[in-house]
Amino acid sequence: MREVYVAGVGITTFGRLEYPLAEIAAYPAMMAMKDAGIADVEQVYVANMGGGRLSHQTGLASAVVDTLSLTPAGAETIENGPASGASAIKQGFLAVASGMYDVVLVTGAERMREVNNLDATDFIATLTHPSAEYIYGVTLPAHAAMFTRLYMERFGVTERHLAMVAVKNQNQALANEFAHLQQTITLEGILDSPEAMTNNPYVAEPLRFFDCCPVSDGGACLLLVSGDVMDRLERPRVRLAGVGQGTDSHVVAERPDPTELAAVRIAAERSMQMAECEPEDVDVAELHDAFTILEIAQSEEAGFFARGEGHLALEKGETALGGSLPINVSGGLKGRGHPVGATGIAQAHEIVTQLRHEAGRRQVEGAAIGFTCNFGGFGNNVVCLTFRREG
Amino acid sequence: MREVYVAGVGITTFGRLEYPLAEIAAYPAMMAMKDAGIADVEQVYVANMGGGRLSHQTGLASAVVDTLSLTPAGAETIENGPASGASAIKQGFLAVASGMYDVVLVTGAERMREVNNLDATDFIATLTHPSAEYIYGVTLPAHAAMFTRLYMERFGVTERHLAMVAVKNQNQALANEFAHLQQTITLEGILDSPEAMTNNPYVAEPLRFFDCCPVSDGGACLLLVSGDVMDRLERPRVRLAGVGQGTDSHVVAERPDPTELAAVRIAAERSMQMAECEPEDVDVAELHDAFTILEIAQSEEAGFFARGEGHLALEKGETALGGSLPINVSGGLKGRGHPVGATGIAQAHEIVTQLRHEAGRRQVEGAAIGFTCNFGGFGNNVVCLTFRREG
Repeated sequence: MREVYVAGVGITTFGRLEYPLAEIAAYPAMMAMKDAGIADVEQVYVANMGGGRLSHQTGLASAVVDTLSLTPAGAETIENGPASGASAIKQGFLAVASGMYDVVLVTGAERMREVNNLDATDFIATLTHPSAEYIYGVTLPAHAAMFTRLYMERFGVTERHLAMVAVKNQNQALANEFAHLQQTITLEGILDSPEAMTNNPYVAEPLRFFDCCPVSDGGACLLLVSGDVMDRLERPRVRLAGVGQGTDSHVVAERPDPTELAAVRIAAERSMQMAECEPEDVDVAELHDAFTILEIAQSEEAGFFARGEGHLALEKGETALGGSLPINVSGGLKGRGHPVGATGIAQAHEIVTQLRHEAGRRQVEGAAIGFTCNFGGFGNNVVCLTFRREG
Repeated sequence: MREVYVAGVGITTFGRLEYPLAEIAAYPAMMAMKDAGIADVEQVYVANMGGGRLSHQTGLASAVVDTLSLTPAGAETIENGPASGASAIKQGFLAVASGMYDVVLVTGAERMREVNNLDATDFIATLTHPSAEYIYGVTLPAHAAMFTRLYMERFGVTERHLAMVAVKNQNQALANEFAHLQQTITLEGILDSPEAMTNNPYVAEPLRFFDCCPVSDGGACLLLVSGDVMDRLERPRVRLAGVGQGTDSHVVAERPDPTELAAVRIAAERSMQMAECEPEDVDVAELHDAFTILEIAQSEEAGFFARGEGHLALEKGETALGGSLPINVSGGLKGRGHPVGATGIAQAHEIVTQLRHEAGRRQVEGAAIGFTCNFGGFGNNVVCLTFRREG
């Protein structure tokens, strides 16, 4: 396989965007092309989950390739629920690695904040098993709440640990101009004060309002190229060195141990193996904290901390900026927002920015190896990526 | 790039299927695995356009990989409107050609007949441009009707030519046990008799009822493998020799000449160039006759007949079984049905069956090179595939 490099990146502000879905995908693509100094693209992948349902639009990739004036380039939409972004990056990797294309745009977008919160939950529940989960009222917050309860009982995680993730990530978003949430929160305000129960009510006990990522619009893009093309560019060399994926039983209740996220473990192992590194080599990571508990659990399954000890590392500050493995310094899904089709690409955008040493106030010093975990369904389809700075 | 072979194929009956979407995708996959004698699959692609809208289901690939007990294999859903099937085959091609995977399942499914005809038209209209076409009431039958009118004026195509395509393809479906329509039709019955206007009313003038493919449920699958894996199997060697794609302006009215299907021409050229053959080398073709006019127009743009002469070749019987280039001997979309996500794979299923010389009553004698054209939107994203029999 040929080596694959990231030549350019782009991202929209996450939050409420007033322009159409195809343009939410196209805008960061224009940024990425400008970033790389490349105008000719041979293939476009668009990551999106809900255009057909929420925006009365299918064939989104065909709209995007035309919006960008890139016809007759190839174009496909890639859908893997909340992991659509990393799955699209995987397709871009294969397209370049195969030798068929030298320049491939991978852009992701979701326009979802126009639905109200009830619709958003029902939309996300299209990810649950239709006949074994959804018809019984299981939603993603419900899955996450049951998972959290089990995790608390087994490992001693408390609501305070969850709130610590929320405070860390949401406040980190203040250092990211593209992040949705731009509001400082404190443990006092969301947990300890008399007003905490009003400020931060339960959504699905034991998960509270501030344990859940916001519903956002947004887009993000990576421009992937072959080594030959990268050689001609001036940008820092960041290689997409590892692509790993794992799937797990669709019905969560069928898993031998519902607190194990086997797909995360497999995807992370495969990704780091391809990139020829170990978890301890990773300098910076973006994990899929759609709910605060998921950052803790994924930090264990990816191999960064021992099973059941993710919350202890959090307590010690190891996952904060300046710690041994800063996690979600971008704000994560919690602070940056979670436009589902864009999220996996936004995670990669952050890692590339870090490995280029262009992350400003949130820079992890000397970062050379970065990792992303993009989590589909309730862990039934996970894609992990490992990036390496060269030179 | 490595060479890519088709080791197994599978297909459901097209029509009304009473089982869930994920099983419509899984059933032909089991057939394809059995056909090849392969149980281990590393990657699954699922082609689907409407699960999120019609079946309240996203992350379909995650459901399919679990239904097939293939976890932790990778899995993604590929969407490119009615060309989703061939686009998924393209991803499968890249996955094997790259060297990353040796065994890749590409299955496609749509469950759409439960919507009524009005909903079906609105669902398919998600492919039109949201702000430049859809809001003005443009649907796919309307696009096809306007295109037909222009084609008639310029090239002398008549309603009789359209009806000849309908009769040829629908009657050919009688030789295909998986085809949706199993009813003989005649020019007398749908065009010439006093009852013809009742039997075959206008849907979007000049297109009549029998010029439009039916709304069907269905699934189809190809199992793609590397040359090394193919060497160990007993099945006839059919190579996926050419993959070509072209995109065109999303808004049809913006095309310099709206009777030209530039994306078909580009996709066909690229596909045959990769396969190192010319249009005259092709022995059997499956074209995307969602509306009868499209078979005529595509047969020209793909290079089989001169521009404006497709209907003349049809008149002479060149496109019938026994003619110089039999087109849609499977029944085509018109006779087999058009479950959108499955169609491109069903076309490939037919070509592989023909090149294996296993097509029974509809066999094109000695077929060695076959071609498919899968048409997305109203020609804004087209994927053409060329297959070659070896040995």
